[in-house]
Amino acid sequence: MTDSINDLLPEGLADRLPPLAGQAAHIARAMLDRMDSHGYDRVHPPLIEFEKSLAGRMDGVQPRQMFRFVDPRSLRMLALRSDMTVQIGRIAATGLAAAPRPLRLCYAGPVARMTGDQLDPSRENMQLGAELIGRDNVAAAAEMVCLAIEALKAAGASGISVDFTLPDLVDTLAREALPLAGGQIDAVRRELDAKDAGGLRDAGGEAYVPLLYATGPFDEAIEKLAAIDAGGALASRIAGLREIAARAAGKARLTLDPSERHGFEYQSWFGFTLYAEGVRGVLGRGGTYHIHGADEPATGFSLYPEQLAEALAGTAEPRPRLFLPLGHDTDTAARLRETGWRTVAALDESDDPATLGCTHRLDGSAPVAV
Amino acid sequence: MTDSINDLLPEGLADRLPPLAGQAAHIARAMLDRMDSHGYDRVHPPLIEFEKSLAGRMDGVQPRQMFRFVDPRSLRMLALRSDMTVQIGRIAATGLAAAPRPLRLCYAGPVARMTGDQLDPSRENMQLGAELIGRDNVAAAAEMVCLAIEALKAAGASGISVDFTLPDLVDTLAREALPLAGGQIDAVRRELDAKDAGGLRDAGGEAYVPLLYATGPFDEAIEKLAAIDAGGALASRIAGLREIAARAAGKARLTLDPSERHGFEYQSWFGFTLYAEGVRGVLGRGGTYHIHGADEPATGFSLYPEQLAEALAGTAEPRPRLFLPLGHDTDTAARLRETGWRTVAALDESDDPATLGCTHRLDGSAPVAV
Repeated sequence: MTDSINDLLPEGLADRLPPLAGQAAHIARAMLDRMDSHGYDRVHPPLIEFEKSLAGRMDGVQPRQMFRFVDPRSLRMLALRSDMTVQIGRIAATGLAAAPRPLRLCYAGPVARMTGDQLDPSRENMQLGAELIGRDNVAAAAEMVCLAIEALKAAGASGISVDFTLPDLVDTLAREALPLAGGQIDAVRRELDAKDAGGLRDAGGEAYVPLLYATGPFDEAIEKLAAIDAGGALASRIAGLREIAARAAGKARLTLDPSERHGFEYQSWFGFTLYAEGVRGVLGRGGTYHIHGADEPATGFSLYPEQLAEALAGTAEPRPRLFLPLGHDTDTAARLRETGWRTVAALDESDDPATLGCTHRLDGSAPVAV
Repeated sequence: MTDSINDLLPEGLADRLPPLAGQAAHIARAMLDRMDSHGYDRVHPPLIEFEKSLAGRMDGVQPRQMFRFVDPRSLRMLALRSDMTVQIGRIAATGLAAAPRPLRLCYAGPVARMTGDQLDPSRENMQLGAELIGRDNVAAAAEMVCLAIEALKAAGASGISVDFTLPDLVDTLAREALPLAGGQIDAVRRELDAKDAGGLRDAGGEAYVPLLYATGPFDEAIEKLAAIDAGGALASRIAGLREIAARAAGKARLTLDPSERHGFEYQSWFGFTLYAEGVRGVLGRGGTYHIHGADEPATGFSLYPEQLAEALAGTAEPRPRLFLPLGHDTDTAARLRETGWRTVAALDESDDPATLGCTHRLDGSAPVAV
């Protein structure tokens, strides 16, 4: 066995071993199967694109996080994707521009970034999601919230909760009901993000303070938000949230944090965050948005199933393994595999069922417990 | 819709769209399911490793093909993997060094290289495979050949053929039966690769010329090879090939090309190449080898399923799609999905079943053809 620097992996990059890797694959399949059953067609963009193309669709700080390198063919800069949503937007605007709308697409694949962060030190993740291109109405938002919950449940998650938000809340209020001077908007947003009532008052956002308290379990929080909305500027949004919540009722715990913006830099009127019991951190996010450069509405969500895999890995039952001795009948073994048995064939006399983790052994034509 | 340079993808990198992307995912699942049923556990190495670690395990020309970039964390060179087999070898020698042998592992994921070649201009491919760590005997080789055939069939391939080779043939013969001067070995290998009888004679490899004719359908070619093997230097290899062929008989067309070395730079005594009807080029390769740096025998194979996906994409039946009108009963829809229906829900009045490619429409509680 070797034991050198070459056996190490770079910080934030890791092997997933059995049974965790199998669990993660199983979870991804279950999620994709739910998306497929709701009519979402699989697309598969490449790992690598021109840096400008990826970065140009991200308009934010994320592009700086991409691994970049020169293309020996084009001599242009390439980047390893750090997000797949922008790729789906590009596909919708190019290769599938002529496909009928609404267009339902799903995807799964690895994404990478140059540095991890405090919440998640990993530099490579599995991203998986569904996008509904051409619609950002309440029905689209409700379909996406329900589909995300269904996908998480199919993958084995329990105690799911969904936190709703209104990403363009401050813009909407400042424009219509609670006017702010141009320079004040950013300060008000910042203090809302910090959930700092004093700071909010100091920034001239006194009227926005009640938003900090319109949070918590959905049914109560939405009433508080409706009470703030004296001018009716949020009426359609509040009605939309109520309709989405009605569709998702009984499927997950629903909460509202109307001024939450973290992770919703690209979303328009609606956003949601997914959590599950026993899983550290956020399992996924979604919402309504406009596809960059194509001015087309869309609704979608992304899931990051690896934390769920880790949470579930400990709970999975070990699967039965059937040892096939030397000289076993291969037709019998094939028939048993067809009925769900997992087999492990002996390759020489030294192969031992117990050492190989087998729970059963083929005796003639029948499995017997080891 | 945009239409700029940023909508283009770099040469050799492409989106896979519906239905091809779905077909490729379906194929990969079917293959991995077969591997799983034979006791192969999933592992999932990272996309990126230290360049030295990946390259050090490849000992060949391939490392030059990897995309490379500096790690801002370690300030060392990183590389995007161009092959996953070396990663599985590293895992076997490190994280799973203490796991019992034989160790059965399978994997799937994207690999990338800086430039394509004439046979395959693509710079990103899906690689998928199984490795049997700790054994390189005839039983291991036969298991791998049969598993590869089974995986291809499960994925929908037909007319499968397997071409056997003996990667260390010249070394073995030159050492024992048909001596060559040190300087001649490379020339003899080169002329065998070129299948050039005249060149072979000129290089002093007259005795090797009959190898060029010991090719073709397995049963005939193996007799020719046995006839050449006057000194018995190949006796154990020939017996091994016959045993593997007996195990695979009736499952695929078997051929022999004993001096074929292309693609078998790392293999030891046995190698095989997989083809299927209607699929351009090689579908996969496998054989016996030693894990770099760990001096452990192993047998494995890799499949590149994308060409198979392309070949099958045209033949797949379009799947039924059930349109769910506005206000449909969501419990009924959920029940139909459970029984295998794929649904597409209306999101507003303008959504039309025919435009959305739906074959059926939910009428009350029953699907009716559109």
